[in-house]
Amino acid sequence: VTLDRARSLDAADPLAFARDRFSLPDGLAYLDGNSLGALPRATPAHIADVVERQWGGDLITSWNQHSWIDWPQQVAAKLAPIVGADSSELLIADSTSVCLFKLLVAGLQAQTGRRVILTETGNFPTDNYVMQGIAGLLPGAELRIVARGDLIDAIDDDTAVVSLTHVDYRSGERLDMAAVDRAAHAAGALTVWDLSHSAGALSLDLHSDGCDLAVGCGYKYLNGGPGAPAWLYVAERLQARLTSPISGWMGHADPFAFAGDYRPADGIRKFLTGTPSILALAALDCGLDTFAGVDMAAAESKAKALTGFFVEVIENCCGIDLTSQHVRSRHGSQIVVPHSHGYAVMQALIARGVIGDFRAPDLMRFGFSPLYNRFEDAWSAAVILADLLETGSWDDPRFHARRAVT
Amino acid sequence: VTLDRARSLDAADPLAFARDRFSLPDGLAYLDGNSLGALPRATPAHIADVVERQWGGDLITSWNQHSWIDWPQQVAAKLAPIVGADSSELLIADSTSVCLFKLLVAGLQAQTGRRVILTETGNFPTDNYVMQGIAGLLPGAELRIVARGDLIDAIDDDTAVVSLTHVDYRSGERLDMAAVDRAAHAAGALTVWDLSHSAGALSLDLHSDGCDLAVGCGYKYLNGGPGAPAWLYVAERLQARLTSPISGWMGHADPFAFAGDYRPADGIRKFLTGTPSILALAALDCGLDTFAGVDMAAAESKAKALTGFFVEVIENCCGIDLTSQHVRSRHGSQIVVPHSHGYAVMQALIARGVIGDFRAPDLMRFGFSPLYNRFEDAWSAAVILADLLETGSWDDPRFHARRAVT
Repeated sequence: VTLDRARSLDAADPLAFARDRFSLPDGLAYLDGNSLGALPRATPAHIADVVERQWGGDLITSWNQHSWIDWPQQVAAKLAPIVGADSSELLIADSTSVCLFKLLVAGLQAQTGRRVILTETGNFPTDNYVMQGIAGLLPGAELRIVARGDLIDAIDDDTAVVSLTHVDYRSGERLDMAAVDRAAHAAGALTVWDLSHSAGALSLDLHSDGCDLAVGCGYKYLNGGPGAPAWLYVAERLQARLTSPISGWMGHADPFAFAGDYRPADGIRKFLTGTPSILALAALDCGLDTFAGVDMAAAESKAKALTGFFVEVIENCCGIDLTSQHVRSRHGSQIVVPHSHGYAVMQALIARGVIGDFRAPDLMRFGFSPLYNRFEDAWSAAVILADLLETGSWDDPRFHARRAVT
Repeated sequence: VTLDRARSLDAADPLAFARDRFSLPDGLAYLDGNSLGALPRATPAHIADVVERQWGGDLITSWNQHSWIDWPQQVAAKLAPIVGADSSELLIADSTSVCLFKLLVAGLQAQTGRRVILTETGNFPTDNYVMQGIAGLLPGAELRIVARGDLIDAIDDDTAVVSLTHVDYRSGERLDMAAVDRAAHAAGALTVWDLSHSAGALSLDLHSDGCDLAVGCGYKYLNGGPGAPAWLYVAERLQARLTSPISGWMGHADPFAFAGDYRPADGIRKFLTGTPSILALAALDCGLDTFAGVDMAAAESKAKALTGFFVEVIENCCGIDLTSQHVRSRHGSQIVVPHSHGYAVMQALIARGVIGDFRAPDLMRFGFSPLYNRFEDAWSAAVILADLLETGSWDDPRFHARRAVT
């Protein structure tokens, strides 16, 4: 495993063209696009235009003149080919947690007589926090959390909603969406998927997998910028049946009538609540544009090749056995390397220009964006990690000092 | 009433210095800062820095390096002197409607045995939509809507929460916050105020008025940009008692522990839910900076003088009687002029460089920001309106054509 081989893999990469769409600091192996996607080259000029010409110059008239009012749907339409859904099923709104709250409650309320939200212990923590909040809020609602392996068997006649994260934020394990959806539907339950660690890295087909409801984050593989708004998906066949619990004016059938009573809009728009941030939408728009002409099957292949190559170099250079991650055929676009001082080692890596992140208790996490990461990034990250582990230079007070955000 | 008088009032204005903090198109009388505040001069460079250097250059490390994680509280701290609250009681988060949902539900749940949310028919429609959603969601919860004049008498032992908009979005009428708070507290009810049309235009003192809970919008008088995030206020004395119904990781006591169970943060931070938009926060930060050194009592005095002067010129030039608005001593920073073809007349005004907006069924609305509006703006708006009404030139098909956003 040599740098030459990494470079020849990069030379043969059919998605190599996409890296030019990003502005990345020189000499950095940025392997944290699963936490915060890189800056698209087009974003600064677009944001400046929205701030200076649209807001500063055209002021309030921009809601019509620049169609700000339609952006939550127009921007969402660019997501449709990335996740395998129709644009009429997608919306940009709020944060992932708020979107999840809306769809979980909407699903639960539509399932008369069923009061259980079912999830698994390894689910993304904030999603479980949202579910705990709902269980505490709605009388009779019950949150049932089972081990991942017991999930399918736990779906029963009480199950209103099964809610899962598609790709495990730590291990990268990818759940079988189609199988869960089939089991849920057979028992009369709805599914709500969190696709934050999937959309933009894997090939998704929400229609053929039978997905009912989904949410996802805009700031990871979708490159929408820090804290980008989230997206939500409601299958066409369910839209008439579901109601948003947070009924605000942007989801009203006629928001500018300022009518006394709430009357939900037809279709997906009823899941909007308040006025969306136009600057945040503009940035997410540019993030989604980085996928223009990118075939998602090719993106998933590249993600698999990148993570596979990384595992190979790690095993070779660092002598760490990652076999279980390597052989897993369906896997998200990330690899975790366990180390008892993972926090400090990650800080030392960052100081050497390799950016990943750390997840408690002992996982160094490396995410690979199929759009801008190169095999050379995987190679240099592994080689620098090997050097740190061999020299022990990570064991330094400045690397042990904990910061607010890991 | 002459242009000379307008100019001499501008020359004597102690807040005239603040207009230089904004970038406003030449020759425009922008009287819609109650819908979308003008662009602060500092915003474009700050946003560019956040996008290019912080996001593009420092990437994920910015959460620590540039304290992104603290911005919801740091930015909110700048609001403290504007609304008369402590910084530990304020947070920037979500949209106004989502914040209202959180605080209404939190208040309702804390009021054991009481299930009524009380408001008035003239309340801001989206706020009533949110309340209708809550009443439909929580068994036993009841929304009671009474005429404004009957409100105080309608507060009783069933009232959990009284929720009102401080300044009427149409008439500009300002409710007596202290009186409502006193009546609510005497009956054991909590108050939730929507201060979207107050904060940044009027002198507020949430402490001395006894306000329990409040929300407000960032994109009107606070100049935070289109769809800026909202703010919320929870009085210190209530923070331990209240719980957010949308419990996401940003409100967790230790978000990066990724613990299995939700444990709310101490203090105001527990009302955060998902990851906030950093670009939107950056823009709101600049919006709040435009208030540096501005005494809010002086701002309210100027708002009163501007609206009073506008009424005077309108009555003089247009022969429209606005006495009831003129004499009202406590009033928001806006004036509405009724006209049966108000929509078309407003479009014609906009085409002549006077920007206000229209609210159904027949109100032309003119908002005055004490930071950047001049008496000369009020004068020219009134003179152009007089000309349009006299010539009838507003009665043109292009001005009658309805657009999505009014």
